[in-house]
Amino acid sequence: MSARSCLSVILAAGEGTRMKSALPKVLHAVAGLPLVCHVIDAAAAAGSSALAVVVGHGADEVRKAVQARAPGADVYLQAQRLGTAHAVLAAREALARGHDDVLVMFGDTPLIESQALASAREKLAEGAAVAVIGFRTDHPSGYGRLIEKDGALVAIREERECSNEERRITFCNGGLMAIAGEHALSLLDAVGNDNAKGEYYLTDIVEIARGRGLPVVATEAPFENVLGINNRAELAEAEAIWQARRRRATMLSGVTLMAPETVHFSHDTVIGADTIVEPNVVFGPKVAVAGNARIRAFSHLEGATVGEACEVGPFARLRPGARLAEKAKVGNFCEVKEADIQAGAKINHLTYIGDATVGADANIGAGTITCNYNGYTKDRTEIGAGAFIGSNSSLVAPVRVGERAYVASGSVVTADVPDDALAFGRARQEVKPGRAPILRGLYKAEKERRQAEKDRS
Amino acid sequence: MSARSCLSVILAAGEGTRMKSALPKVLHAVAGLPLVCHVIDAAAAAGSSALAVVVGHGADEVRKAVQARAPGADVYLQAQRLGTAHAVLAAREALARGHDDVLVMFGDTPLIESQALASAREKLAEGAAVAVIGFRTDHPSGYGRLIEKDGALVAIREERECSNEERRITFCNGGLMAIAGEHALSLLDAVGNDNAKGEYYLTDIVEIARGRGLPVVATEAPFENVLGINNRAELAEAEAIWQARRRRATMLSGVTLMAPETVHFSHDTVIGADTIVEPNVVFGPKVAVAGNARIRAFSHLEGATVGEACEVGPFARLRPGARLAEKAKVGNFCEVKEADIQAGAKINHLTYIGDATVGADANIGAGTITCNYNGYTKDRTEIGAGAFIGSNSSLVAPVRVGERAYVASGSVVTADVPDDALAFGRARQEVKPGRAPILRGLYKAEKERRQAEKDRS
Amino acid sequence: MSARSCLSVILAAGEGTRMKSALPKVLHAVAGLPLVCHVIDAAAAAGSSALAVVVGHGADEVRKAVQARAPGADVYLQAQRLGTAHAVLAAREALARGHDDVLVMFGDTPLIESQALASAREKLAEGAAVAVIGFRTDHPSGYGRLIEKDGALVAIREERECSNEERRITFCNGGLMAIAGEHALSLLDAVGNDNAKGEYYLTDIVEIARGRGLPVVATEAPFENVLGINNRAELAEAEAIWQARRRRATMLSGVTLMAPETVHFSHDTVIGADTIVEPNVVFGPKVAVAGNARIRAFSHLEGATVGEACEVGPFARLRPGARLAEKAKVGNFCEVKEADIQAGAKINHLTYIGDATVGADANIGAGTITCNYNGYTKDRTEIGAGAFIGSNSSLVAPVRVGERAYVASGSVVTADVPDDALAFGRARQEVKPGRAPILRGLYKAEKERRQAEKDRS
Repeated sequence: MSARSCLSVILAAGEGTRMKSALPKVLHAVAGLPLVCHVIDAAAAAGSSALAVVVGHGADEVRKAVQARAPGADVYLQAQRLGTAHAVLAAREALARGHDDVLVMFGDTPLIESQALASAREKLAEGAAVAVIGFRTDHPSGYGRLIEKDGALVAIREERECSNEERRITFCNGGLMAIAGEHALSLLDAVGNDNAKGEYYLTDIVEIARGRGLPVVATEAPFENVLGINNRAELAEAEAIWQARRRRATMLSGVTLMAPETVHFSHDTVIGADTIVEPNVVFGPKVAVAGNARIRAFSHLEGATVGEACEVGPFARLRPGARLAEKAKVGNFCEVKEADIQAGAKINHLTYIGDATVGADANIGAGTITCNYNGYTKDRTEIGAGAFIGSNSSLVAPVRVGERAYVASGSVVTADVPDDALAFGRARQEVKPGRAPILRGLYKAEKERRQAEKDRS
Repeated sequence: MSARSCLSVILAAGEGTRMKSALPKVLHAVAGLPLVCHVIDAAAAAGSSALAVVVGHGADEVRKAVQARAPGADVYLQAQRLGTAHAVLAAREALARGHDDVLVMFGDTPLIESQALASAREKLAEGAAVAVIGFRTDHPSGYGRLIEKDGALVAIREERECSNEERRITFCNGGLMAIAGEHALSLLDAVGNDNAKGEYYLTDIVEIARGRGLPVVATEAPFENVLGINNRAELAEAEAIWQARRRRATMLSGVTLMAPETVHFSHDTVIGADTIVEPNVVFGPKVAVAGNARIRAFSHLEGATVGEACEVGPFARLRPGARLAEKAKVGNFCEVKEADIQAGAKINHLTYIGDATVGADANIGAGTITCNYNGYTKDRTEIGAGAFIGSNSSLVAPVRVGERAYVASGSVVTADVPDDALAFGRARQEVKPGRAPILRGLYKAEKERRQAEKDRS
Repeated sequence: MSARSCLSVILAAGEGTRMKSALPKVLHAVAGLPLVCHVIDAAAAAGSSALAVVVGHGADEVRKAVQARAPGADVYLQAQRLGTAHAVLAAREALARGHDDVLVMFGDTPLIESQALASAREKLAEGAAVAVIGFRTDHPSGYGRLIEKDGALVAIREERECSNEERRITFCNGGLMAIAGEHALSLLDAVGNDNAKGEYYLTDIVEIARGRGLPVVATEAPFENVLGINNRAELAEAEAIWQARRRRATMLSGVTLMAPETVHFSHDTVIGADTIVEPNVVFGPKVAVAGNARIRAFSHLEGATVGEACEVGPFARLRPGARLAEKAKVGNFCEVKEADIQAGAKINHLTYIGDATVGADANIGAGTITCNYNGYTKDRTEIGAGAFIGSNSSLVAPVRVGERAYVASGSVVTADVPDDALAFGRARQEVKPGRAPILRGLYKAEKERRQAEKDRS
């Protein structure tokens, strides 16, 4: 397979009005990745050696997303939208370069798997001029049927043109196809627009190729491979299928998901074996979790690295740049961003750690805040190995708390604390005996005054 | 349709013992709204011009809920419960007022849609005396079958009285019906109780009307329209169907729900186009979110207004009276209640803002608390536009921080801060070099002492 | 039934390589309880009077878990694993004690219900020598079929040995069986290993018993009863079935689950009637909630006791030793562990209460932290009835705040506060008029300096 060159043409020009969105349809995301990028990834995984993306609606935005994912992609503008064959021909320049295989895909079918593409390419390697990707369904109503005879694909028949017998066919057109490069331009150029809508339909090349005596076949893929997204309910459906696939693969690789249907992955999430993920966890983009860790319920991770045997959550938020070394703990109502949490450090309760280093085995008390932002710059807090930060402390960056240093509870730390030093930064407590009832009396009187005022008005 | 007057009679007297609840069955909620209020809303949407609700068990509570939702409703007490026809007749006074149409509904079928009711009313407009709402099911066992002949409804046959052939009928009685007002009282009064339970059954009017030569028909509605709630598993089932309907409608209107099955709406939730709702979001009653906003994962909103392009969450809680102007941000572990958050203001981490105004573009540091309550009164905190509140500060209300003012981290602010002023309210830091090991030694010794004591006992 | 003695033999020696785990398969958990312990519980509920567990892979760990759940269990080592009959014979010593009934179960079928086991035992009481537990399925492919004739079980036929007619049988072998104690050892000893794998198969005793003229029967149980766990996807499937069962039972008992599919129970969760559980709640082990309580969304409870009419959450975490008396409230972003929260006390926002007593009707302000840990010992905080703790206070344990005492917002409390006293522990506020713009200028200049430096590099 890899011996043959392959051009993938992805059609991504559609407007997607039923999305009711300012964002072009193919830029809506599944698993945190734009639809069109899923298709790009599948093409690459199927051995595609060149990529042409045809854009139209929201061309600039789509171009940008495409080239961010596939820097070498050629992007072609389809100025007028006159049908799928017309769209493919927008990439005429790329087609003319003479690839062995041409794959035609759609930017709004994010669940296409490389296997389905590879199977179609195999048919070309075996001599087919065109290989159409189809799917089987018990409810074919509304789809074009794939009419086969003696192993060849005879026609793609629109439902309204089907005979009663043909209507019972459950093998349907998925829209995607592989075309032998040597015939691709010639077949596409032969497509006419003598039909109700005056459009150039890609599916017409089946009959054109047949007419020329070229071999045409159909291959089969699971339905979701060709599921096109046209509204946000279908977007959610695709997301659900993607998540189900990934959850299952994750579990089979040795990760426990206690309630898989409540765990949401991103396209690039990585999790090591024997890690346990409790219910209700969201993995945003760029998260890697090592093995033997425990991601507890109600945790939210983005751009974070979690080391071996760490414990995160419940109710923890790791933001980009959070890096937890082995056996670190980040507990409830804690937020960590741009921070190195070294081995065995504990950040257990109601804490914000940003732009910081927390040394090995340091203990950060409940309610600790690193004051990393002054409205203009972000500054760093360095906490040494084995340091103990008392609860409800504020560490005003830039500041360094030394190794094994001790910060008393409720302190505001504005200056560096040397190794082994003890730092205080809190007022001395005063007690006024018997004063509480007096205070309560004042507050109560004020409450009654307000109520009386309200009653009068 | 609207030319005809219509009385809706809702039967809401049942005890609902299988709910095992002190609360009357029809007051249990779906989407935050009592069951009976869903039925009231459907009646109104079907063009009902008068409403009679028949109550019995928990009459006072039900009456209160009904009149809160429909102030003009007449509420009738069914003192003894002798069957459905008897229940409808409790509203004799309303029936006697001579409406064109009479709809009979049940207070425990919250998923009834106005379309089903309107279809039945249409049959009356076309001349029917009675129109029974039925449903089709593949599993009719246990339901009364609708026996039709030549487009007319001949009988409602209880299953135990069905012939083998009738048992195969899949069109079943949904219980709800529309009755021509001119015949309603006369038909109902003709119902007898000569049956095993000695009850007056509403379904008997079908055969009575037929006996009088009046036209009787059946209309069809999806099953859930007539789904009656008898226990809390069925309550949850109704909730799930309601949520699925609303999620789908929300997505089709142009809102992205990344994981729709994890988003919970209330009956009155409003969300604008191109807003993205991440997984695990709960919308309590009275929430309106504008367009282009992002409601991040694990957020909980009640009684809140969220402006255009705001970002809420993850892990944010907006309580009643939280009003976010455009581009405001409320982030993780933040709670906002009774507060105006003006355009572009940021409340990002571990903060409680209550009874407050936060000016445009103000920045509220992590761990900030508005101390709004003294045990008696609630007082306000005013934060001016462009102010900067340093982390871990306490703002003791009533207090005002001026525009562009700056509060140092860890401050307790008890007096007003003028515009452009800098406020401090924290102790000076002291450092005791080398003292940490001594402290640790003391703590460690105490730990060992306790252990030794425990070991002795 | 109870008159007959019963030995349960649980086979728990398998390695479970497809789990891809360092943990032995039978120690993976469903509902927070190891698989093998679910089977132990079902055996006990079916009236088992003696328990023998056969271990192999991870023998020490499994033995420990078994004896923690069933202290009287005998644990036998199967050193070589030569088939299921061989495994049962590892418990020869127990079998030789002459129980009336012998139940053979597997440690990896956690959904077995006592009813299925009791039904099989009933067959023994009625005279059967062997009673095999089967299940019916529309998709029998891959399972051994139960071949019955005249009410007797004739054979367990592996699919590859089935005739075409036998293949259509939908009654399949569940693997579990009951054996009359008087025949058990003799039947097991007669099993040979003359087969492809050279293993001793338990299923062979069916034909052996038949050959001896002993009565053999099959009983039927729902499929999930015999669902064996072989990988983590199946583990999650079992968890889902377990949760669905428990959710339904909980709802039918009079508890409202607003979104049951988002509520996760542990094996021992107890919830009282008319309690409402909102979406997204996780009950870890050892939680008991009384009636009329409300567990709000996004709450996480472990080892906690919640009294009548309490309100917990949203976003609350109750850890082991949290004990809430009636009408106590624990609100958002609050964590409570090892603490008695007395009647009517309120802990509403962003608070950590650990190793503490909070007296009746005390009010704990937002952001309060009990500083219970100094790196070595954990010390207690006592808060008296009716006390008021101002927001953002730190209570440094050991410390006592008296009844009706008042702690000012932002205080660090290090010494006891007498009843009715007022305590302050915060710095006096200072204001520098006009200083904010100067500060901003400095920060802005620094920001520009950094940017310039970055631009140069």
